[in-house]
Amino acid sequence: MKSFINVQDIGPLEKAMAEAFEIKNDRFKYQHLGKNKTLMMIFFNNSLRTRLSTQKAAMNLGMNVIVLDVNAGAWKLETERGVIMDGDKSEHLLEAIPVMGCYCDLIGVRSFAGLTDREYDYAETVLQQFIKYSGRPVFAMETATVHPLQAFADLITIHESWMESEKGKVNSEKFPTGQRSAEANSSLLPIHSYLKRPKVVLTWAPHCRALPQAVPNSFAQWMNAAEDVDLVITHPKGYELDPKFVGNARVEYDQKKAFEGADFIYAKNWSNPGVTNPADYGKITCEDRSWTVDTEHMSWTNNGKFMHCLPVRRNLIVTDDVIESPNSLVIPEAANREISCSVVIKRMLEAL
Amino acid sequence: MKSFINVQDIGPLEKAMAEAFEIKNDRFKYQHLGKNKTLMMIFFNNSLRTRLSTQKAAMNLGMNVIVLDVNAGAWKLETERGVIMDGDKSEHLLEAIPVMGCYCDLIGVRSFAGLTDREYDYAETVLQQFIKYSGRPVFAMETATVHPLQAFADLITIHESWMESEKGKVNSEKFPTGQRSAEANSSLLPIHSYLKRPKVVLTWAPHCRALPQAVPNSFAQWMNAAEDVDLVITHPKGYELDPKFVGNARVEYDQKKAFEGADFIYAKNWSNPGVTNPADYGKITCEDRSWTVDTEHMSWTNNGKFMHCLPVRRNLIVTDDVIESPNSLVIPEAANREISCSVVIKRMLEAL
Amino acid sequence: MKSFINVQDIGPLEKAMAEAFEIKNDRFKYQHLGKNKTLMMIFFNNSLRTRLSTQKAAMNLGMNVIVLDVNAGAWKLETERGVIMDGDKSEHLLEAIPVMGCYCDLIGVRSFAGLTDREYDYAETVLQQFIKYSGRPVFAMETATVHPLQAFADLITIHESWMESEKGKVNSEKFPTGQRSAEANSSLLPIHSYLKRPKVVLTWAPHCRALPQAVPNSFAQWMNAAEDVDLVITHPKGYELDPKFVGNARVEYDQKKAFEGADFIYAKNWSNPGVTNPADYGKITCEDRSWTVDTEHMSWTNNGKFMHCLPVRRNLIVTDDVIESPNSLVIPEAANREISCSVVIKRMLEAL
Repeated sequence: MKSFINVQDIGPLEKAMAEAFEIKNDRFKYQHLGKNKTLMMIFFNNSLRTRLSTQKAAMNLGMNVIVLDVNAGAWKLETERGVIMDGDKSEHLLEAIPVMGCYCDLIGVRSFAGLTDREYDYAETVLQQFIKYSGRPVFAMETATVHPLQAFADLITIHESWMESEKGKVNSEKFPTGQRSAEANSSLLPIHSYLKRPKVVLTWAPHCRALPQAVPNSFAQWMNAAEDVDLVITHPKGYELDPKFVGNARVEYDQKKAFEGADFIYAKNWSNPGVTNPADYGKITCEDRSWTVDTEHMSWTNNGKFMHCLPVRRNLIVTDDVIESPNSLVIPEAANREISCSVVIKRMLEAL
Repeated sequence: MKSFINVQDIGPLEKAMAEAFEIKNDRFKYQHLGKNKTLMMIFFNNSLRTRLSTQKAAMNLGMNVIVLDVNAGAWKLETERGVIMDGDKSEHLLEAIPVMGCYCDLIGVRSFAGLTDREYDYAETVLQQFIKYSGRPVFAMETATVHPLQAFADLITIHESWMESEKGKVNSEKFPTGQRSAEANSSLLPIHSYLKRPKVVLTWAPHCRALPQAVPNSFAQWMNAAEDVDLVITHPKGYELDPKFVGNARVEYDQKKAFEGADFIYAKNWSNPGVTNPADYGKITCEDRSWTVDTEHMSWTNNGKFMHCLPVRRNLIVTDDVIESPNSLVIPEAANREISCSVVIKRMLEAL
Repeated sequence: MKSFINVQDIGPLEKAMAEAFEIKNDRFKYQHLGKNKTLMMIFFNNSLRTRLSTQKAAMNLGMNVIVLDVNAGAWKLETERGVIMDGDKSEHLLEAIPVMGCYCDLIGVRSFAGLTDREYDYAETVLQQFIKYSGRPVFAMETATVHPLQAFADLITIHESWMESEKGKVNSEKFPTGQRSAEANSSLLPIHSYLKRPKVVLTWAPHCRALPQAVPNSFAQWMNAAEDVDLVITHPKGYELDPKFVGNARVEYDQKKAFEGADFIYAKNWSNPGVTNPADYGKITCEDRSWTVDTEHMSWTNNGKFMHCLPVRRNLIVTDDVIESPNSLVIPEAANREISCSVVIKRMLEAL
């Protein structure tokens, strides 16, 4: 695997999921792979979960890790070519990227959308420069438009939760009880082997700051790829995600209708993607707090689980009651970030 | 050991001290304990000694270490429940803590007193949330009211110094010369086996900023627990430490009387603890620079050693002459931070 | 090796170069040397290459690494003795240095020139305090007046490039073809065994901020020591480097004349060294942009290679065209930082 950006990069999802559960059972199994290998984690933006879970995953795999906060302790970077660099930026990305590549074997990059120039963001300009100039395999630790480590962890979390629930009981016709080992039940079974495909609802929720679309984009992309979930996306008019991420998902503008019968509610704010009106790109065009997920919203679901990638603004995205309820999966989701990242790094180490 | 906050958490001090000297003789002896274990160090405040010595101790024990500066590179954290989070704080501690716990085996937390709300500080609100929600053993790297790694290192330093000095010679009746091996003399002997208990004086000293009471609190607590030292506390009226930390120590408001015959002077500033007047909590109610420890002060002692936890404001807490004199123990104290921390982490690893 | 500051500290250059090429062939060969040893990297200033390459080198050698950004997460440090520390500085370097030394085996220090007090800077006041008070071997990660890890990497880069080029072909009289193994050709051959000594030109270039002289100082020092290069230094009048660094190099004020026939152009800005006029120390006394290295400049050379230590201000020091041309060695130079640092750390570990 030369880079990890989109769901296609991980190959067949069933295999990737099997590896995820294998690693979750024994996190240090592939520790030999990382000996004398160095991961460089490059942050242009803040991070908690990604920073910690990626470090942990790399150390589980026996790697050395170097963390670089570009905006703290390094030099401010110029990104445009042709500029006379007599301002506050001491170094050009065109030098910095190959230099960083010199001192490591793998690179993880976090670089958020600027939210002012849709074309620049959706071209993944910074990420593509890393891929082009670093000379190393690169994986996205949330870039301008995608956050695949999160979406992969979300998929793992949905499978785990579904397998444990009554609703997700194995389809007894396809897999009569007694014919499958416990291990098979717990690790390798794709959701589409179950009696019922879970209904997964990605819902927009209000926020006080303009946020990127990376998380909903990747979530939609991965749920589409999983094939074994029934994805519905709900948001105010004008917040349509890019069609290449929406794929075959059903879009429902009525949040209540969308929630009806849902097994999983995945809440997230995003700023206007500028799909229906390019001038709105990156703006907050709806502040309707009736979209905040509260207990009434959850009562519309089929005893649905609540998910969010975190960090979450309480009582804006979701109420205290919902996020603290037994149906909240936000912590297991975060915990699975270590697992999704371990699979990705393992694959990259194997391909070196 | 599930948490390390107070002296009681370490169990019998004699055993803890013996382990400290054992580890000082061979810092890598317990390296196997930390294999594939991760320490997460979480800093809400600045640190030099604690940051470096804790990392060193954990690496000595074979651990992986992740350092997180909450205020640099992560998200600002909300600590109140029920708030509509539409301000500058992107994440709630109630999510952040269990998430951090996901990616590690042990947690060290530094979170200073805010010095505005005595009840909040003395309830150790932040630390207790880590203990309650992280799912991991937690140790204090200086919290609102305690700094036990420092006090433990101070106790090690006092023992070492006392054992080496003429004054601390072994009580020949209890331990006739020739009957004890050098090893016993250097490692396992409690101070109360000596001819004379050292007189240890904790003295307030002036400072230009309001500082927490964590260091004097823990120092008093540990000296009380050690039983084999004679503790006197001296400070201006109104600076009384919390009685639960003062314990059986003698309080002497006349600094000169307190210093007379002292074997160890432990200087430290603290802001008003609000014990006698709650409205004074966290304030500077005395700026009297006659309390600065200078050579005249030290001349009142019995050739006393000078101690301070560092960082120290020279010529405010202590003069250049005193801190640079052969009787200054400030560097050995700092060096013993690696040792005290090694014992604590070793215990926590054994209990996993 | 107790400290690494000047070229003399590394001993015979031929041996150091041989070790560099040996390590470049097998970066993990000396990994046993660093077991249970800790490097502390102390940054008073920003860093990209030095931060990353030094960490990488130390990890290659099996060391534990602690990185300390003094201005982020630690305490502001007082450097003057005798000050009443009631300002914004919480700790004195006289305590901080021996404390840092407590927790490690080797120390790397980055501390730039202040550029206001020539005597203070050229006395290497901060570095010398680390050497005097830390109790550990210390190496310079760019100090007030030198950057030896860079100069060593530059020398490696020049040798590599020269050996690969037609111009640098082995002197057939001294080393008739067929009598030398490929390994000998690629690793151990000093430049003075070649047909022609390369002409190396250190050229000043304009900049918008006042920069230290550390890089040109060390570059001149190392090129002088190498003996097998022909060093010319060119800069506007008044920018004369300190004679102790210029050594036997030829100074040529006419940039075009200097460039004629050059095999290597090493561009760098530096502020006025205050040699001819002490009052000018650390100032920008020339802003002449005709010194910017562009394709016309390079056309004066003998198909010369372009070098710069990075970070570089594009279109101020050098144009996009030149730095992106096949003759640009800036990335191989940066890559060799890992190698030069590995040799230095290896030597220090061997001498512990």
